[in-house]
Amino acid sequence: MTFKLPPLSERANRVTPFMVMEVMEKARQLESEGRSVIHMEVGEPDFPTPSVVVETMVKAIQDGAYYYAHSQGTPLLREALSRHYKKHYGVSIPPHRFLVTPGTSVGLSLLFGALLEPGDSVILSNPYYACYPNFVEFYGGKPLLSLVKEVDGFKLDPSALKELIAANSKVKAILINSPANPTGAVLEPKRLKAIAELGPLVISDEIYHGLSYQEERDHTILEYTDRAVVVGGFSKAYSMTGWRIGYLIVPEPYVRPLQSICQNFVISVNSAVQMAAETALEHAWPEVERMRFLYDKRRKLMINGLRSLGLGILVEPFGAFYVLANVSHVNGDSRALAMEILDKAGLATTPGCEFGSGAEGFLRFSYATSPENIDEGLLRLKNFLAEKGKLP
Amino acid sequence: MTFKLPPLSERANRVTPFMVMEVMEKARQLESEGRSVIHMEVGEPDFPTPSVVVETMVKAIQDGAYYYAHSQGTPLLREALSRHYKKHYGVSIPPHRFLVTPGTSVGLSLLFGALLEPGDSVILSNPYYACYPNFVEFYGGKPLLSLVKEVDGFKLDPSALKELIAANSKVKAILINSPANPTGAVLEPKRLKAIAELGPLVISDEIYHGLSYQEERDHTILEYTDRAVVVGGFSKAYSMTGWRIGYLIVPEPYVRPLQSICQNFVISVNSAVQMAAETALEHAWPEVERMRFLYDKRRKLMINGLRSLGLGILVEPFGAFYVLANVSHVNGDSRALAMEILDKAGLATTPGCEFGSGAEGFLRFSYATSPENIDEGLLRLKNFLAEKGKLP
Repeated sequence: MTFKLPPLSERANRVTPFMVMEVMEKARQLESEGRSVIHMEVGEPDFPTPSVVVETMVKAIQDGAYYYAHSQGTPLLREALSRHYKKHYGVSIPPHRFLVTPGTSVGLSLLFGALLEPGDSVILSNPYYACYPNFVEFYGGKPLLSLVKEVDGFKLDPSALKELIAANSKVKAILINSPANPTGAVLEPKRLKAIAELGPLVISDEIYHGLSYQEERDHTILEYTDRAVVVGGFSKAYSMTGWRIGYLIVPEPYVRPLQSICQNFVISVNSAVQMAAETALEHAWPEVERMRFLYDKRRKLMINGLRSLGLGILVEPFGAFYVLANVSHVNGDSRALAMEILDKAGLATTPGCEFGSGAEGFLRFSYATSPENIDEGLLRLKNFLAEKGKLP
Repeated sequence: MTFKLPPLSERANRVTPFMVMEVMEKARQLESEGRSVIHMEVGEPDFPTPSVVVETMVKAIQDGAYYYAHSQGTPLLREALSRHYKKHYGVSIPPHRFLVTPGTSVGLSLLFGALLEPGDSVILSNPYYACYPNFVEFYGGKPLLSLVKEVDGFKLDPSALKELIAANSKVKAILINSPANPTGAVLEPKRLKAIAELGPLVISDEIYHGLSYQEERDHTILEYTDRAVVVGGFSKAYSMTGWRIGYLIVPEPYVRPLQSICQNFVISVNSAVQMAAETALEHAWPEVERMRFLYDKRRKLMINGLRSLGLGILVEPFGAFYVLANVSHVNGDSRALAMEILDKAGLATTPGCEFGSGAEGFLRFSYATSPENIDEGLLRLKNFLAEKGKLP
């Protein structure tokens, strides 16, 4: 008697792989063949983790901090997070409203599992971070896309959201991301406040906080409403991608159910990494400021360079470390163009189509790389465009 | 205009908290009042992580191994895992069939998400590890319980499973766990082989491998069938609970969908921890053997002690670090009894009801604690029983 392997679930087959991985794999292949590739496709800081964080981690491990920790996160880390929110945003969030997770992705996934009934809608901007629709659909939810306009700097428009909510009965939440991936857009206080007042729960992915380059400081959604969940982490601003630590801040009534979910599904987050994160909050902010200063210089270098090559950047992006540039005059098929630029010019970028129809015809350039690499990448792009007769 | 917070999903409200946490919280409260508590409730090794693993971790962090890693796990760790399975079990599993996860719980949860359509059944033993039904129900699945008998050492009976499968049309998988939590039962090769031949996919939670105390070595389900998923990890045998690293081994056709899920939901596992795990596989086995020898001594101490106090252990448990002892002659309500023993005798145990109806009337005693603590705990239990007139 032979048995067949059962098929995977419909939800599993719906999960789309990261297209950026396809670019990276192709880039790696070229590199293994001896080609030089400039990487502007990855969303990962090139700076080392601040040394004070590394030192804490080493000491914690040597001291034996490798047993199970509290399922919600160590009390010390949650107290440090609470102080951080008071100091940086002026909001009082008690430590018990934080849930520490092994990265923000795990946190977002558990959150959507906790929140969505099949058929519930979640409003996303279009373009969006590539994983968002997968999170929503994995739990039977329906992404409802709000097209954000190039001319408006790709910022969510509260009045367009209002119409979308009026036209759809089952909107459970609005997911916002400011500063945003892939657009670098930063929502100003007025927009945040207007979105907070629309009615649905606001899920605010604040993973790029600490990386805005305007006078205006970062604002958490919790300054405007308690009817919100914040998703935060250490990967980007603190240059701690590979450490895998993030957190949720949830409204009081959500705490216990989410804690039960964390107990069952995660057990706890690496104990020593939690001590390292605590040190990051308490002692690494000057280092965050220093990196922010350097990212800002790279940002200007990238924007000026791309504009001088005729790429469209209608509104200057002021956050994260991405520039979404219009390349539709070269090729409206962003995937084909990204592959061609990689192949012919040795420059890896992320095709806009990865981030939804609203970014088709665009390429995402990450400036989380050295000024020398940015210069070299722009030079390669210039030669590529010259060859195609597409320089201004 | 005021808005109400939306309710959480039905699946969220169905997740049950760990009752063992309730015991632990009560224990902590007593300790904070100055009472002494002996801990036999936790399923966590008291041994430190092997020093060679700690040293690798320290060096990895100091060397800057804190960037994103491959979404399936580092190639080096997966190659080491592949060699481990060849050496310890004689099976050839190529590295690309492994998916490294931040602990086995996250892995199991993603697996059930990938596998279950609403209404699908998963067969579990009763008693079961407390989180299993929550994993299954979170994705709309239905746990189908197979009562295992005290007189049979709480081992799954393939012929009972066969009847259960015949009587239910939508059995998607059988979840086995050998050595088992909470029973310490180890399934012998004959049973594993018979279960592998039943038809449904076998999900084999092998987290307690390395902790069996018989002549017979551990057997992975992959020795008997390829129609299986293995869930493994480092927490128990290598004394690495707080590090948060585990893995799945999936059949070839499941690899790409599961990788997409990991890319989206986990991104990657802590890079340095993966290097530490690689060292564990390559260099810490002698230390695992040493700990196993010590656990075995504690096991005998615990079993003999409990039996001498009149607690029922019909069949000697040979795996993990748990003894599930029958206390129904003292009190059939295991929760009430566990709380009373904690309160009056200062001994923390886990009530059987935590693990399903099949363990009601039992208490779980963990011997992952020092012989001195075991002696002291048994003495406290003896005095408690004497007071109740329940000593044999």
